[in-house]
Amino acid sequence: MKIVVDGFGGDNAPEAIVEGVVKALKDYSDVEIVLTGHEDKLKELMAGREEGRVEYIDASEIITNDDVPTEAIRAKKDSSLVKALDYLKQNEECVGLVSAGSTGAVLTGATVRVGRIRGITRPALCPILPTITGGKVLLIDCGANVDSKAPMLLQFAIMGASYAKAVLGVENPRVALLSNGTEDKKGNELVHETFALLKECESINFVGNMEAREILSGDYDVVVSDGFAGNVALKSCEGTAVSVFKLLKKGIMNGGLRAKLGYIFLKPVLKGLKKNLDYSESGGAAFLGVIKPVIKSHGSSEAKSICASIGQVRDMHIGNIVEHIKEGLPKSE
Amino acid sequence: MKIVVDGFGGDNAPEAIVEGVVKALKDYSDVEIVLTGHEDKLKELMAGREEGRVEYIDASEIITNDDVPTEAIRAKKDSSLVKALDYLKQNEECVGLVSAGSTGAVLTGATVRVGRIRGITRPALCPILPTITGGKVLLIDCGANVDSKAPMLLQFAIMGASYAKAVLGVENPRVALLSNGTEDKKGNELVHETFALLKECESINFVGNMEAREILSGDYDVVVSDGFAGNVALKSCEGTAVSVFKLLKKGIMNGGLRAKLGYIFLKPVLKGLKKNLDYSESGGAAFLGVIKPVIKSHGSSEAKSICASIGQVRDMHIGNIVEHIKEGLPKSE
Repeated sequence: MKIVVDGFGGDNAPEAIVEGVVKALKDYSDVEIVLTGHEDKLKELMAGREEGRVEYIDASEIITNDDVPTEAIRAKKDSSLVKALDYLKQNEECVGLVSAGSTGAVLTGATVRVGRIRGITRPALCPILPTITGGKVLLIDCGANVDSKAPMLLQFAIMGASYAKAVLGVENPRVALLSNGTEDKKGNELVHETFALLKECESINFVGNMEAREILSGDYDVVVSDGFAGNVALKSCEGTAVSVFKLLKKGIMNGGLRAKLGYIFLKPVLKGLKKNLDYSESGGAAFLGVIKPVIKSHGSSEAKSICASIGQVRDMHIGNIVEHIKEGLPKSE
Repeated sequence: MKIVVDGFGGDNAPEAIVEGVVKALKDYSDVEIVLTGHEDKLKELMAGREEGRVEYIDASEIITNDDVPTEAIRAKKDSSLVKALDYLKQNEECVGLVSAGSTGAVLTGATVRVGRIRGITRPALCPILPTITGGKVLLIDCGANVDSKAPMLLQFAIMGASYAKAVLGVENPRVALLSNGTEDKKGNELVHETFALLKECESINFVGNMEAREILSGDYDVVVSDGFAGNVALKSCEGTAVSVFKLLKKGIMNGGLRAKLGYIFLKPVLKGLKKNLDYSESGGAAFLGVIKPVIKSHGSSEAKSICASIGQVRDMHIGNIVEHIKEGLPKSE
């Protein structure tokens, strides 16, 4: 299967992107890659490695975080991202896309140039986080739609549950609504309206309201939220994890010989912990609701994370995620 | 100065409350306490300790988390919380209140039975979190108002900045607006409207939008948010910190002798880290906008945290927080 990769998106592009592609070609023998961006540079980096399974689409421009997404998608027609999106749209044999570029540009571009699944009002960004019980939890939406309405959140729930089932193999995913308490009456107006819709929806296993404290608990498979609160939740989790490690480091630095000895002994555990919390190791955020799988890889992605994102597109294609989402949508639409 | 304490609010009441009161009476020689609740029980627990500086208000009922706050405040007139609120309202010499009881009941009760500062639309809940640089950051609002309007957020900003100045002694507090990115244009509709109001407000030092990732960074003194997103941020931070410690514990348990040795050596650092992250050690959440200082202590508060909350009311009284808030409000109101 053919997957298109934005060769010049992200802080570490194109080097980390190419390394990730090489790794993915080794890991997945059924995958072929289409790389977009400065062709000469990409070819130079790829030289001598897995070249038989890579195609190139030359693109002279780069969309950065400083660009206004809507404008950049329109104006930078020769950018590595727009070329990748158009390739995905125009080539039936291309099954999905990976980009570590500007989040806004990837989301806007995928929506307007690739297109939404029929019946989906707004696609949503869905990172997959590791839980403390060793499982995974989906947080949908995490910033694509900062002013959402209840029917949109219902669709987020359906899309998240579809991913959990089709890609992660969770049989009857537990879908919860992010609120300020677990009781049915908790929440703001949007949560109240959404709660009623989720309760009525027969295609999902809605388990009620939940608190942000429990996101990583392993008690839920899909956490539904509007994009603003979801973004706050995701970044609060990230920020706290980073803060804990910074404080730990400071404590060790200032803790004398005893602390340094302790660190040496505990190093494997701490490394494992850090790895466990770093969700980029398992890929990127899925942009669900688009007619083909699109993964937004973290801007600071290294090769490992790009490779995992390619694997994620592969899993989404094999799991037939788009058909699953279509089937989950209410039939009246 | 006289401070009234809800003797029967919280998971560990009345024992932990009484212990906290005893500790506070030792720590603060200028404080006298009024304890509400089953008088006989309270007197039995206090027996022989600092009794000269404690008064009792008998109350036969208890408001729990299972009660509907608005109904409980109306119906349970003989509860330890309502008695405490009424004492605060009716006695000029009483300078503030501490309760570890139901958050909803404390907030509703303080608003309707004690009253708002003239000009304040809605009081807001404001926990004070430790930053990784050793300072403190205020997060306002954290759940009192889950459907806020921009003018309310402006008032939250003014109240938070007043607390930072008057109570924490921060000279020119940096006030930031919680958003999904740092750029001026980021945010949902509410953030856009609030951004404009904060930018115009001359009485505060507004430094712009911020991401939830940076809440604990030490770069900001006051983080302004509507109550829903603020609650999500607070609980995501709490939940992640708890998760990291659970994972670390698991890693140590499964890490063999080497990990256990490491743990023994690192124990002081890890304990310090836990203490640093546990904001209940430094008191409770201030409920700002009420005519007298009200502190909502964590439901699971132990004596240390009750004592710190009493100290916090004392600091708020000495710092003249209510007058500071009044002065910060736009004069036209």
